[in-house]
Amino acid sequence: MAEVAIFMGSKSDLDKLSDGITILKDFGVSHEVHVCSAHRSPAYLMEILKNLEQQGLQVVIAAAGGAAHLAGVCAAHTILPVIGVPMDIPPLNGLDSLLSTVQMPGGIPVAAVSIGRAGAKNAALLAVAILSLKDAQLRERLLQYRKRMAAEIQKQDQELNQ
Amino acid sequence: MAEVAIFMGSKSDLDKLSDGITILKDFGVSHEVHVCSAHRSPAYLMEILKNLEQQGLQVVIAAAGGAAHLAGVCAAHTILPVIGVPMDIPPLNGLDSLLSTVQMPGGIPVAAVSIGRAGAKNAALLAVAILSLKDAQLRERLLQYRKRMAAEIQKQDQELNQ
Amino acid sequence: MAEVAIFMGSKSDLDKLSDGITILKDFGVSHEVHVCSAHRSPAYLMEILKNLEQQGLQVVIAAAGGAAHLAGVCAAHTILPVIGVPMDIPPLNGLDSLLSTVQMPGGIPVAAVSIGRAGAKNAALLAVAILSLKDAQLRERLLQYRKRMAAEIQKQDQELNQ
Amino acid sequence: MAEVAIFMGSKSDLDKLSDGITILKDFGVSHEVHVCSAHRSPAYLMEILKNLEQQGLQVVIAAAGGAAHLAGVCAAHTILPVIGVPMDIPPLNGLDSLLSTVQMPGGIPVAAVSIGRAGAKNAALLAVAILSLKDAQLRERLLQYRKRMAAEIQKQDQELNQ
Amino acid sequence: MAEVAIFMGSKSDLDKLSDGITILKDFGVSHEVHVCSAHRSPAYLMEILKNLEQQGLQVVIAAAGGAAHLAGVCAAHTILPVIGVPMDIPPLNGLDSLLSTVQMPGGIPVAAVSIGRAGAKNAALLAVAILSLKDAQLRERLLQYRKRMAAEIQKQDQELNQ
Amino acid sequence: MAEVAIFMGSKSDLDKLSDGITILKDFGVSHEVHVCSAHRSPAYLMEILKNLEQQGLQVVIAAAGGAAHLAGVCAAHTILPVIGVPMDIPPLNGLDSLLSTVQMPGGIPVAAVSIGRAGAKNAALLAVAILSLKDAQLRERLLQYRKRMAAEIQKQDQELNQ
Amino acid sequence: MAEVAIFMGSKSDLDKLSDGITILKDFGVSHEVHVCSAHRSPAYLMEILKNLEQQGLQVVIAAAGGAAHLAGVCAAHTILPVIGVPMDIPPLNGLDSLLSTVQMPGGIPVAAVSIGRAGAKNAALLAVAILSLKDAQLRERLLQYRKRMAAEIQKQDQELNQ
Amino acid sequence: MAEVAIFMGSKSDLDKLSDGITILKDFGVSHEVHVCSAHRSPAYLMEILKNLEQQGLQVVIAAAGGAAHLAGVCAAHTILPVIGVPMDIPPLNGLDSLLSTVQMPGGIPVAAVSIGRAGAKNAALLAVAILSLKDAQLRERLLQYRKRMAAEIQKQDQELNQ
Repeated sequence: MAEVAIFMGSKSDLDKLSDGITILKDFGVSHEVHVCSAHRSPAYLMEILKNLEQQGLQVVIAAAGGAAHLAGVCAAHTILPVIGVPMDIPPLNGLDSLLSTVQMPGGIPVAAVSIGRAGAKNAALLAVAILSLKDAQLRERLLQYRKRMAAEIQKQDQELNQ
Repeated sequence: MAEVAIFMGSKSDLDKLSDGITILKDFGVSHEVHVCSAHRSPAYLMEILKNLEQQGLQVVIAAAGGAAHLAGVCAAHTILPVIGVPMDIPPLNGLDSLLSTVQMPGGIPVAAVSIGRAGAKNAALLAVAILSLKDAQLRERLLQYRKRMAAEIQKQDQELNQ
Repeated sequence: MAEVAIFMGSKSDLDKLSDGITILKDFGVSHEVHVCSAHRSPAYLMEILKNLEQQGLQVVIAAAGGAAHLAGVCAAHTILPVIGVPMDIPPLNGLDSLLSTVQMPGGIPVAAVSIGRAGAKNAALLAVAILSLKDAQLRERLLQYRKRMAAEIQKQDQELNQ
Repeated sequence: MAEVAIFMGSKSDLDKLSDGITILKDFGVSHEVHVCSAHRSPAYLMEILKNLEQQGLQVVIAAAGGAAHLAGVCAAHTILPVIGVPMDIPPLNGLDSLLSTVQMPGGIPVAAVSIGRAGAKNAALLAVAILSLKDAQLRERLLQYRKRMAAEIQKQDQELNQ
Repeated sequence: MAEVAIFMGSKSDLDKLSDGITILKDFGVSHEVHVCSAHRSPAYLMEILKNLEQQGLQVVIAAAGGAAHLAGVCAAHTILPVIGVPMDIPPLNGLDSLLSTVQMPGGIPVAAVSIGRAGAKNAALLAVAILSLKDAQLRERLLQYRKRMAAEIQKQDQELNQ
Repeated sequence: MAEVAIFMGSKSDLDKLSDGITILKDFGVSHEVHVCSAHRSPAYLMEILKNLEQQGLQVVIAAAGGAAHLAGVCAAHTILPVIGVPMDIPPLNGLDSLLSTVQMPGGIPVAAVSIGRAGAKNAALLAVAILSLKDAQLRERLLQYRKRMAAEIQKQDQELNQ
Repeated sequence: MAEVAIFMGSKSDLDKLSDGITILKDFGVSHEVHVCSAHRSPAYLMEILKNLEQQGLQVVIAAAGGAAHLAGVCAAHTILPVIGVPMDIPPLNGLDSLLSTVQMPGGIPVAAVSIGRAGAKNAALLAVAILSLKDAQLRERLLQYRKRMAAEIQKQDQELNQ
Repeated sequence: MAEVAIFMGSKSDLDKLSDGITILKDFGVSHEVHVCSAHRSPAYLMEILKNLEQQGLQVVIAAAGGAAHLAGVCAAHTILPVIGVPMDIPPLNGLDSLLSTVQMPGGIPVAAVSIGRAGAKNAALLAVAILSLKDAQLRERLLQYRKRMAAEIQKQDQELNQ
């Protein structure tokens, strides 16, 4: 069973998504990663999404570039929260991906995060935050994660100023 | 039977599409116009598209704004030529619509035309040009249309210079 | 007690947020609406956010325009899911608001939705989707909402084609 | 005889067009490739276009960058369907090429596809889709191409999840 | 005989060009104004351009919007200086017009001026500056024009500070 | 004691800020450099800012990229002049950083300088200009700096033309 | 004598600058307002700037639109802090003004504030913040201003929640 | 004596201007090249411009990047035709340079050409076109240049199709 499903429009996105996948592992969130194009394999995408949903899926993360419809198509077929990661592909470096992901019509929301690698990480953290609403242990881990992050910066600052 | 189907993402786009519909009427091209959202009514969209295709549909025109996935979703489900009209809706005036429509991944083409009203007209003329490849009468009408257009500008120029 | 808090950077945003507030009312989700600027009243913002969190807040919605830091500042001070609504204010019509809201650094996610009025509505629906993960009744209401939306479009299409 | 003509504004575009040329070869569509600038060799462009048209040309593909007028100039001189490929050249990476190609005035359509290499491929596939309307064998090949593409993604996904 | 020809892509541009036409009148520069589309009436455009060139034309001004090819097409067919005025038409307000006008490939220059009404005025003043190189009287008038403009601002400033 | 504090959102910005730090050293302006994120370590940022302010801080320089809230957050917590340096990070190369930094709401100003390395240098020079208002020696040094800069260009020009 | 000079490129900008002028009045900062174009009256601009500088000018505010060189030209001729206000004029709504104002080369800083009316207000507040560094009374007034602004928002929030 | 002066804002632009300088040499047009910043050495720029003008200068070419004021400042100080070349410098790749160069206010025209290297070449060719109006030999050389350019493309096309 997977609480979070990560769909990517192209296998070449896998490396950029790795920080997000690591976050889910580190937080102990069950997940699956799928290559599934909204345009090139729409039937397969629907099939996997339905299967996962029946098995208890909670949050969808969809990463795609260009005319990035993946998150929107997922959002059209599920009422689970869908997080869209606009990938930074050439030539427009993700401006197209961002607008295609975020500018959804009223009625069908997509939660867009930052373009590219930072977005993949933040999508995973957002999924953790959502799941934390009903999981006190996860919530505690997220609090600790935040504290370590702040401490890390504080340490960097102190090293810089020694 | 309809040779051309025009899908619009929102009923409010109808007025901006009217020049395109008039072109199809004037050229005697059979057509149907449908309100069908890729996000809000995906099943209904697929159903209508399949029905029309079985009845002999030749060209799809899809007009949508914002994260405009309508043309791309149609293109994912048919191998007929799909023409996308990026609608000029606020606040970004169609830049989002254009990028969401045109920047399709390699493998699934969408033929994007101009943003907004001019695009609706050109989508219809492009459909006529495509259908003209196997209809000599339609081709002749298109040639006459072009000639009248050139003559009209020439006449405007001569009136201006009298 | 409020499950959802809506913060707006300026009281003039209230009208554009109204569809979102109506969604929360219609779904029976408890909520509070606050005027609170990340720049002009940062202490007050922090105070309200802390209070609400202690009273059981689940989801934060933050709507702001221009250099829209409101959602990011909230996200820096809570681990609850934070949804950012980029407001469409002149002169750049929300492109600045969108980038300021969505392009968060890795570590602190904001869930950005569409610019402006559609975004306000979608922020509320996204909050409902998140809360539905632990509320079966809410989930059922969301499913019904989606069905009504699809039926409404189908009805529009049939009226158009009579 | 060539059913499809590919015009490029500069010989340096040839490499980026190669996927599109391969598509036409693989589908068995007769074609010619020409270097022809709308600005630097307008007379030669017109001459080749007229010759090809008399020999039975069906679809024009025009690839150009910057102030990309090539597709529009072709469209002004033929009523055949004209597909424009906006090339991704520095410094603006094709945003200029896209707008110069797609924003045609009402009356003279250009079918714009994605910027750059993906666009070259999609232009060829769009030409195939158009020609398929009167060639059942080609249509069958296009259906098979789509199936292979979907199967390929499905295979990638299964390899990823073994 | 006309020293300067102003071409506009659409008759609706005439009002926005009026300040430029007034400048030419006030400086006593002979000129002709033509409605002539690069796309809709290419043959007529070439014909008028050739005629004017044989009668002693010196400078071409071409105003167009959207995929604004008018100046570029003129520049491809004459070696006279060609000034392009990008018109500010919706929905993109002239950004498309500007890029389509200015981003010419090496070899065929277009002299782009400001978008819209200010550009029309400046195109005329640039034509006057070019013609002034061989007309001392015109040069003197241009110097006086500049002085009046500076004096006018100085007067405004003094009125503001009385 | 430091007259100028430079905050950077990420330690990776240090190299791009080096020209600015060198300027402050060369002008003899006391300064401190801190790594401090508005999002990841907001409490630490506030603490350092308050401490420095009590010790006589005069000018704040804040450099950040993406949804660059650092300068705005500083400006919300101090009435000292705050200079924002938008960093040029991928994928949008600083357009997001610029808009997030400069588009502050009326009431809380940030002084934005150029994107990236040039901006870091100019932020330091702007701080020097501000401090020069009450330090005649510093003012003299700034005048000499400007003269050397002009002389350097003049020398380059003369070498080019020998 | 004026501590602050406000230059505007066009008299039509006066209304949009009014909030800034009011701020200076309310804070009791002596100031002068001038209409002075960098392009149309460069000599007059230099003359006024030199005069004011000799009389004790401290801060320059320059507001201009389009190819907004006014702030940069002032910065090239003085070492006083120069604040640039990018005006939001059609057709590009100030994106051109912003980039022309802020993207100064290393060596000659301009302090850019928000586009348009909010920028005019913030330019005045930034000037006050700069002057406050050597004027304890002004600094106190700025602190009070901030407190009133925060209280005003708090009051709005409480009215909304009664 | 120089008929054409090329000003560049930074010595680092020299390489990108080389094609333009070669054009002027090949056409036998006398010219001078100067490093001269509108911001860092305004007095020196004015001095050189005045000197050249008294010696018979005909056309000014000004190349600059970022907040590219060089062409506009030249245009403010001479009534000769001024051609602006927007340089393609990071991080915005010349979009800022283009807007700063082309968006001049009504009254003071700048003739903008393409961004970067192509623009440098076209600026020289535009200068040649302007000078050709009073030099029949130069005009003949420009005609031959155009013919060679067209022949070169025709040759490339024939080689490709052998």
